[in-house]
Amino acid sequence: MNEWTEQVFTWPKGYTSDAVHAKLRYSKLDVGWLVSDVPAAAAGVYTTNQFCAAPTASMKRLIQTNHQLQALVMNSAFANACTGEQGIKDVLQEQQWVAEKLAIDPSLVGVASTGLIGAYLPMEKMAKGIAALKKTTNILLTEAILTTDTKTKTLCLTATIAGKKCTFSGFAKGSGMIHPNMATMLGFVVTDCAIAAECLQSMLSELTDETFNQITVDGDTSTNDAVVLLANGLAENPVVTLTKEEYPFVKELYRFLLTELAKMIARDGEGATKLIEATVNGAKTKNEAQIIAKAIVGSNLVKAAMFGNDPNWGRIISTIGATNCQFQPDKVTVKLNQIEVVKDGQPVPFSEQEVSNSLQQATVFIDVDLQTDSQVGKAWGCDLTYDYVKINATYST
Amino acid sequence: MNEWTEQVFTWPKGYTSDAVHAKLRYSKLDVGWLVSDVPAAAAGVYTTNQFCAAPTASMKRLIQTNHQLQALVMNSAFANACTGEQGIKDVLQEQQWVAEKLAIDPSLVGVASTGLIGAYLPMEKMAKGIAALKKTTNILLTEAILTTDTKTKTLCLTATIAGKKCTFSGFAKGSGMIHPNMATMLGFVVTDCAIAAECLQSMLSELTDETFNQITVDGDTSTNDAVVLLANGLAENPVVTLTKEEYPFVKELYRFLLTELAKMIARDGEGATKLIEATVNGAKTKNEAQIIAKAIVGSNLVKAAMFGNDPNWGRIISTIGATNCQFQPDKVTVKLNQIEVVKDGQPVPFSEQEVSNSLQQATVFIDVDLQTDSQVGKAWGCDLTYDYVKINATYST
Repeated sequence: MNEWTEQVFTWPKGYTSDAVHAKLRYSKLDVGWLVSDVPAAAAGVYTTNQFCAAPTASMKRLIQTNHQLQALVMNSAFANACTGEQGIKDVLQEQQWVAEKLAIDPSLVGVASTGLIGAYLPMEKMAKGIAALKKTTNILLTEAILTTDTKTKTLCLTATIAGKKCTFSGFAKGSGMIHPNMATMLGFVVTDCAIAAECLQSMLSELTDETFNQITVDGDTSTNDAVVLLANGLAENPVVTLTKEEYPFVKELYRFLLTELAKMIARDGEGATKLIEATVNGAKTKNEAQIIAKAIVGSNLVKAAMFGNDPNWGRIISTIGATNCQFQPDKVTVKLNQIEVVKDGQPVPFSEQEVSNSLQQATVFIDVDLQTDSQVGKAWGCDLTYDYVKINATYST
Repeated sequence: MNEWTEQVFTWPKGYTSDAVHAKLRYSKLDVGWLVSDVPAAAAGVYTTNQFCAAPTASMKRLIQTNHQLQALVMNSAFANACTGEQGIKDVLQEQQWVAEKLAIDPSLVGVASTGLIGAYLPMEKMAKGIAALKKTTNILLTEAILTTDTKTKTLCLTATIAGKKCTFSGFAKGSGMIHPNMATMLGFVVTDCAIAAECLQSMLSELTDETFNQITVDGDTSTNDAVVLLANGLAENPVVTLTKEEYPFVKELYRFLLTELAKMIARDGEGATKLIEATVNGAKTKNEAQIIAKAIVGSNLVKAAMFGNDPNWGRIISTIGATNCQFQPDKVTVKLNQIEVVKDGQPVPFSEQEVSNSLQQATVFIDVDLQTDSQVGKAWGCDLTYDYVKINATYST
């Protein structure tokens, strides 16, 4: 199997992009777009929140109906969620503006919004913003979709697929209200590789469960979550389908890319100082391993302990025990940064100072072995800090 | 139907109690007991955490087997959870010491522990502590079981049952790791009223679902949760059973008592500055109303917003939508302290300043109407504050 190479972020062949400051936010970029020269095969996964936002519902309908998109227009500051009929009209208006500007059909334009729930989009500002967008190669779009994020989340891979060089450019945003169920707050991977839409969708649906759905910042599932893949085929490789020999490699590449983007979101969780990676081994089923791993990185008490570099493993044990998963309490083993603290469900003497020191690193590893069967699951989260409270006690006002 | 009266906390007829500082904690009371002159009918509900602590498992076994207890011995500082065979032996030893001292059977002695998970009980100190306990009428026990709690949680009611004056004395502890599932971190109601054990158990199981199981501080279910009721019959009323005419009144009295104790725990959640009461009306089922109410008071984002007096109702809507409950998003109405902020799923203009000011009160009321059917559910929680992080980033070390 061939390999992929990480490179400086750039758009794949046939994609242009731009972003502007349309004054939705005080001083930061807030409206942007991404345009493919030709319609691209599209796949998506979307929030399961019952208050699904108007743009997210529209994106879902478009992709499920046509399996292709040519342009994505995005804004931060306003989520256009809980905005009723007006919200739906505003999405249609955005599609119309972009379609006219590009001389394409409005059904080829996807809309993504992120920001405050329950406020109407300021459409005059949106109109000016969209009017100002150019077909350039800058990567400002990866900034324009940020809200409380402290950094952009991007990853660009190149690989040779059936003799053709293909580029896969992934970017995401998300920092709070992160507890995805089917997808997370805006993730995108666009490529010039030719991949059939149904192949793209099948791969995304499968990989989402072990990547974006396995991160959590605060246990709150957003109204606007969406991960969208575009593949415009301009690398001119033979189209990848589920039965082609290149498929396993392409899937592994996407697994790596989606996992890394998901981890970037968890690491940049609101107020976070570190990434927490929980791995559960020896579970009865993969699903149970994933449930326990996600429960650990989702526990406020575990998250606060990790912030304080406190090796208080009782909170990990308590979190595992609160699940309905199948295991024997007296077989459970727990390691903090490779140091065993619980063996067969009972305390192991360890140097609190040594473990506490190790917890100060940028990534903390919690390894659990249920010793029940052989299934494995992973999840990612971040610590709970004073800054999380600060950011969220003063968000809208 | 007759009424109950609240009074200064005291033990009912035939109960004695005491607590001492056995040096499990630096300076606070940490070991205590409660003794009935005669065996009392007993009922209990217990944590569903799979790492159920040794004392909790023992209490459950005793009550389910014998339906009676005569003494309860309690300690704070150490939970005696995840302590394997040694933990079980230590519980038996505690029962033995108390039984010998009182000249009763060890099977009449229940043990309750709360504190750090995964450390063995310091049995020499426990021995000295138990040896020092006297049969007095002081109420120091209600202090001795506290950990990060900032205040005692007690409520004492008197009522005339079938012509006899009965006293019902409830006390509880709990501040962190509060997200009960079947029961919460140590709650007790003892009475001199004569109530049949099966009646007591049936009532407790039913009432727990809408009282202790409807509070949350941090979403973490403890290993040591237990609520235990004792009724020693020394008020000499005819025994209350499920079919007696006094039963509905007694049940209402317990509903009130357990609800108030549960609210005291939520209000004194770690770092909390206020109690949040969520009421969901118009649900399809009572269970769904309770699920949504508990989800609202359990959302970190809602909790942080309430700390900041921020009327950011989008977080409430998002939390409701993340459940699987049945409702129409465009029918949902939300009120913050009686001020309507969402009507039929869409924003209602309101004065942010007015709502923000009202959120500064000691209890915040969030009222949701799903307008789907007629079922109602309530839940209680607290705000998420800097102090929650502070307390939990530095608990064990």
